[in-house]
Amino acid sequence: MKIAILGTGDVGSNLGSKIIELGHEVKMGSRSSEKARKWAKSHGQNASGGSFADAASFGEIVFNCTAGAGSLEALKMAGSKNLGGKILIDVSNPLDFSRGMPPTLTISNTDSLGEQIQREFPSTRVVKALNMVAHNLHTNPGLVKGEHDLFICGNDETAKARATEILMAWFGWKNVIDLGDITACRGMEMFLPLWVRIAMRNNFASFNIKIVK
Amino acid sequence: MKIAILGTGDVGSNLGSKIIELGHEVKMGSRSSEKARKWAKSHGQNASGGSFADAASFGEIVFNCTAGAGSLEALKMAGSKNLGGKILIDVSNPLDFSRGMPPTLTISNTDSLGEQIQREFPSTRVVKALNMVAHNLHTNPGLVKGEHDLFICGNDETAKARATEILMAWFGWKNVIDLGDITACRGMEMFLPLWVRIAMRNNFASFNIKIVK
Repeated sequence: MKIAILGTGDVGSNLGSKIIELGHEVKMGSRSSEKARKWAKSHGQNASGGSFADAASFGEIVFNCTAGAGSLEALKMAGSKNLGGKILIDVSNPLDFSRGMPPTLTISNTDSLGEQIQREFPSTRVVKALNMVAHNLHTNPGLVKGEHDLFICGNDETAKARATEILMAWFGWKNVIDLGDITACRGMEMFLPLWVRIAMRNNFASFNIKIVK
Repeated sequence: MKIAILGTGDVGSNLGSKIIELGHEVKMGSRSSEKARKWAKSHGQNASGGSFADAASFGEIVFNCTAGAGSLEALKMAGSKNLGGKILIDVSNPLDFSRGMPPTLTISNTDSLGEQIQREFPSTRVVKALNMVAHNLHTNPGLVKGEHDLFICGNDETAKARATEILMAWFGWKNVIDLGDITACRGMEMFLPLWVRIAMRNNFASFNIKIVK
């Protein structure tokens, strides 16, 4: 498949590397194109780089791995035409580090970044996923021993089913829990302050949660 | 021991009943005294009821089980003198149901109810606990099978140690995780939108989370 990754940070780089390893074509997108092209150079012939719009135009499925505070702007640069009808797997969190650690959220409680993205791009099929765990777990959930859960949400059932297939078959996730429509992004993003607190207390980011009944 | 329970709802009633069962004296406090006295009548000779101030004055340890949106007001009625120096186990969540389900939070992100309470009553030793699980689990964590975690936070180490003893010895909690100072209330309270979402999707509130590494 042709996959677009928007954002060349740890999140995007890790996902892009894994997806290339699986034999797919990846176009990385970045604000200036330069970082994305530089990334692609060291990732073999199935990797390419360009602007956010180049990547979004190329990908059959798009991963939003940009920093949450700039995600809407980055996606506008990617362009609603290039994103139209496509599955957008939104990995981002609206974290504000401007006041230091721990971060606060730029949006929360009565709205969420995932909802903002879905409203801004109504024909794009936004699936929130992977935002509640560290990037090294995205493509290697087995780093955490025992059972643990991955949460997703979104308005489009077919898109969620396809995203779930990818998360399981490509990355190895076993328990994918669908929390319903895109408004579940509020809870998924508001989990981050607790996540950060647990990570800071333990000086350890490779953890996840398991729902126990 | 002499224990004060502020709030006669499901949370306070459940905790009060269990603590009486354990052989302690409980004074329930309510806004009008009436509800608290009515509750006490059906709970034996170790139960009594009165105003928030009556209860806070009586208790060596105080549980705040009032609805979060009214907690600060209720605690002001309880009185800073009556709460001074005491351990206040704050079970409340700042939930706003005025726009229906799911609730939003009346305070979040850059502050929390636990912090507001600690600021308002600086000599009270606030320990946040039990707010992340349904009230029926508070005193019966074994309703959830397998290992699961209870989170606490607060500024006073001795108070947290004492609260942990109570949670383990009285109620049967096994894994109590200290998230640090009172500012951890932000993450603990912002977990609620995710909790509510999971509960609504499953039509089931008797669950908890386990941190998996």
